[in-house]
Formats: sequence, structure tokens, C-alpha cells
Amino acid sequence: MKSLDESDFAIVGLGLMGGSLALALRAQNACKSIVAIDRDADVCARALARGVVDQAGADLTLAASADVIVLATPVRTILAQLSRVGGIAPPGAVVIDLGSTKREIVRAMDALPAHAQPIGGHPMCGKEVAGFDAADANLFRGVTFVLTPLACTAPPTLAFVRSMVEAIGARPLVIDAARHDRLVAATSHLPFALAAMLMATASDWARDDELFDALAASGFRDTSRLAASDTAMMLDILLTNRDHVAGAIRACSRRLDQLADAIAQGDENALRGILEDSARRRRALFKS
Amino acid sequence: MKSLDESDFAIVGLGLMGGSLALALRAQNACKSIVAIDRDADVCARALARGVVDQAGADLTLAASADVIVLATPVRTILAQLSRVGGIAPPGAVVIDLGSTKREIVRAMDALPAHAQPIGGHPMCGKEVAGFDAADANLFRGVTFVLTPLACTAPPTLAFVRSMVEAIGARPLVIDAARHDRLVAATSHLPFALAAMLMATASDWARDDELFDALAASGFRDTSRLAASDTAMMLDILLTNRDHVAGAIRACSRRLDQLADAIAQGDENALRGILEDSARRRRALFKS
Repeated sequence: MKSLDESDFAIVGLGLMGGSLALALRAQNACKSIVAIDRDADVCARALARGVVDQAGADLTLAASADVIVLATPVRTILAQLSRVGGIAPPGAVVIDLGSTKREIVRAMDALPAHAQPIGGHPMCGKEVAGFDAADANLFRGVTFVLTPLACTAPPTLAFVRSMVEAIGARPLVIDAARHDRLVAATSHLPFALAAMLMATASDWARDDELFDALAASGFRDTSRLAASDTAMMLDILLTNRDHVAGAIRACSRRLDQLADAIAQGDENALRGILEDSARRRRALFKS
Repeated sequence: MKSLDESDFAIVGLGLMGGSLALALRAQNACKSIVAIDRDADVCARALARGVVDQAGADLTLAASADVIVLATPVRTILAQLSRVGGIAPPGAVVIDLGSTKREIVRAMDALPAHAQPIGGHPMCGKEVAGFDAADANLFRGVTFVLTPLACTAPPTLAFVRSMVEAIGARPLVIDAARHDRLVAATSHLPFALAAMLMATASDWARDDELFDALAASGFRDTSRLAASDTAMMLDILLTNRDHVAGAIRACSRRLDQLADAIAQGDENALRGILEDSARRRRALFKS
């Protein structure tokens, strides 16, 4: 197997994630070459002009000579592309994705022909802005980069991907796809759902009041930030993690109803217990 | 009526808000003197040593010669202090508070003797850390500072308080106490409730999984930030705005249940509509 710096990369989808990966690999001079595959000709032209990639175009077959094929599109596009990648990837090619849910992707990877070396990936970072223009060579710095190997993933493939993750400044974390999807429902998808429903509820609540904007301060700004996330991306995430996301949202909704009851009843002791517990957990989680 | 720079201030409660006000007034050299009233002798000593205030102690009667008495304690402490301030405030003294709910405070201010000049105040800023050590002379910069005058608040008092707000870099916004309380239930108290219940739900969801911390990234960090808010302060806020807060939480909880249903059923069109609407509203609200 080639080393990272001898490898030719194909990055499919030059949005926030794929664009940031291209920028990070280039900034570190970490690989031999990068071809970008994106349906947006403008993005391809800009990436070429900036020297971020060596070649760019819309056709997935541009990946035919790559040592590493990175699928950096929304989850359901990754699933569709995986059904074509098997016929394009050269023998021994590493196939990795950057999708935010892993069970369905790993299942689709399992159906790849035996000559491909698939592994799931999920860098735990993001922004509420999407697209190549928001890409950042430092997006992955200090970030947990989840890797979900398959039964067929060879140890050298895992070692190779670890070296890629470390080259862009992230911390590899090997974890089972099912465990990943269950955890991110609570750490990532539930926060998005709360931000979106906060925005909807507050807008409706203050519909006829032009002072809403003036009274939406930093607390509202931070808590609602994720509501601005790219809808196409989030739709794919939620729909490929339906059981866990619906479960986490309903669990939170029940807690909110209990909180509303305690507030409405003026049950100060119950309320203090609930709020102190959350405050203590939040301070412990981000104590550094 | 004296001008701002001729005025002696008494700031009751030298926490994040009162401490920041003292620092801001001092940094701008905006008033003649500041006496701090705080039950924490250490805080008083530190504020004196840093030259932030001219005098400090635990006794509310230290406000007896002040031109302006600022109540910067939690809301229910403000309510208790207002019942004593009437007997302490000299004739013509401005009595203002920095509490986050206004209806109960304005009602208590209405019971002050006629020689006091009361007005409600609420700077729309904060941090998830409390106390004098977190105080910041720039906390109010560019922030909306709500003022809720009473029927008895004289125009010169309102003008004086406006000049104070502007001196510390904030933007005065005069608004009715009832309207304020209804709006902040959605813009401030609901975000806190969501952050706290996110923290509780996610902790419980991932109770037996030591990887929870590694997978809690920037999205979780921002959405849960307010959960770390000072419990005593938040308890007072929620309990003095019970009707609106319980209503806003229940409205949000119903939306979350609808969202969970759409996700569980895989109702892509409904889901896209909901998420696009929230994303559009969020981008419009913080477009700058």
C-alpha cells in the first residue's frame, strides 16, 4: 500500500467538508495529487484557480485512477454514489466518506466489490454555513474524526486513514457505526432539532412584535445557531438516523413538558433540582 | 436633577451585572462615585482594591446618600430589597434594577414612596458564568438595554437613565414591562430551557457510554451553553415569568413532537418545509 504522500486523492463533493479536506491536505502537502469531483463548474474552476486541486470536473469516473476516493456529499448522495464507485475504483483503492450518519453508509460499503477497501468516516465538526466558500484548511484541527471500519477493512487501510486524519490535525476515534449513530443523535442531531424548533417557536410567538429582533441577544443567537444549517444536508442526516433522532427528540420533549409543569406550578424544589443537575453536567462536560 | 457625572451611585449586588456596570461606569469616568453593596466581603475587598468602587459593604443603608440606586441582584432578591429601599433612598433618588423579568419588579416599584424615582431596567446581555470575577467593562457594548418606566417615572429620570445607558455603550429601548416579559420568554427563557433539557436528555441518553464527551462537538457546545447559567438567577427569572415561560416551552415541545413524527414517518416533504422555514428565519435574524 502506498504511503499518504504518494497517494492520489479523489474528493467527491467540494463543499464545506470536501473543500476543507482538500485545503488541509494541500496546506500540509500531505498527498501526491487531488482531483475534485463536483457538479458545480464554478466551484471546480475556483478550486483549480486557487491551486487547491490539480484536476476538477463533474464526472465520478475522474476517480478511476485514485488511490483514495473520499465521498464528501450529503449522506443520501453518498449512498447513491457508493453504488457506482464499485465499478470505478481501481483495485486496492481506499473508499472513505465524510457523512454524518454511518449505519446506512457502512451497509452500502459492505456491498462494494472485494477489490475496494471501504471505511466510514465522520469528522465531528461543521459550520452553519455550507459550500466551498466556507471551507477552511483548519476546520479539522483538534477535532474528533470518527472512523467506522468494516469487517473487510484491512489493518493497513485503517493505519493509512489514521495517518490522513492525523495529517489534517484531527484525532482518529475508531467506533462501531451503530454506536456512532446512537450517540450523535443526542450530541448532534438533537441540538439541531432544538435550534430549529426554537427558531420556529420564537418567530411564531413574536410574530406581530417588531421588537423580537432587538430582544434576541447572544443566548438566542448561540442556541439557535444550528437552525441555519444546510437543509439538504440535515434532511439526509435525520432521514438516515430516524429511529434514534425521533427517540432523542421525544425524550427531550417529555423533559420540556415536565419542566413547563414545574414552572407553571411554581414547584421551586423540583425546578432547582432539574436546573442544578443540568448546570453541573454542562460545566463538567466543557470544564476546560 | 444632577447630571450623570455629578451623581453618586449605589450598586447593590456586585456580580456579573452589577460588577460590569461598576467597571463600565468607572472606565468611562461617567459618575462621581460608586458604593458597592454586596454580602460577600471578599468581593467588596477585591472591588475596593482594584479601585472599581469607592466604598463597599454589606448593608443596604450604604445607599442612603446615593443619587442612583441600582439593584443588580437576582429578581426575587430585588423584590425583597425594593420593600426596604423606600425607607433608605433619599428624596429624588433614581431606583433602577437590572433584573431579567419586569412585571413583578415594576409592580413592586409602584409601591415605593413618592419621593423615589423608579424605573425598570434589563440589559440584554449575559454570560454562562456568574460573579464579580466574570464582570467586564465591555459587557454592555452594543447591547439593547430595556427600560420600563412607570406612570410615576418623570421625563428627566428617563432622560438621565438613557444617558447612563449610552455612557456604558448600550442602546436604550423603552418598552412596556408586560410586553418585555412576553418577548423574553421566547428570546431568552426558552433558549435556556432548551439548553438545560438538551444537557439532561443527552447525558441520560449516553449514560453508559464514555464516548459521549468525545462526540459532543461545537454544535452541542453552543446549543447547551446556557445550561451552565447560574441556577439561583434562572430560578428567579422562570418563577417571575411563569405563565409566559411555561407557554413558550409547551409550544416548542409540541413542535418537537411534530418534528419527531415527521422524522419517524420519513415524511420528507413536511420535514423539508419545517427545516427550510427555520433556516430562512435564522439567517434573516442574524444576517449581519
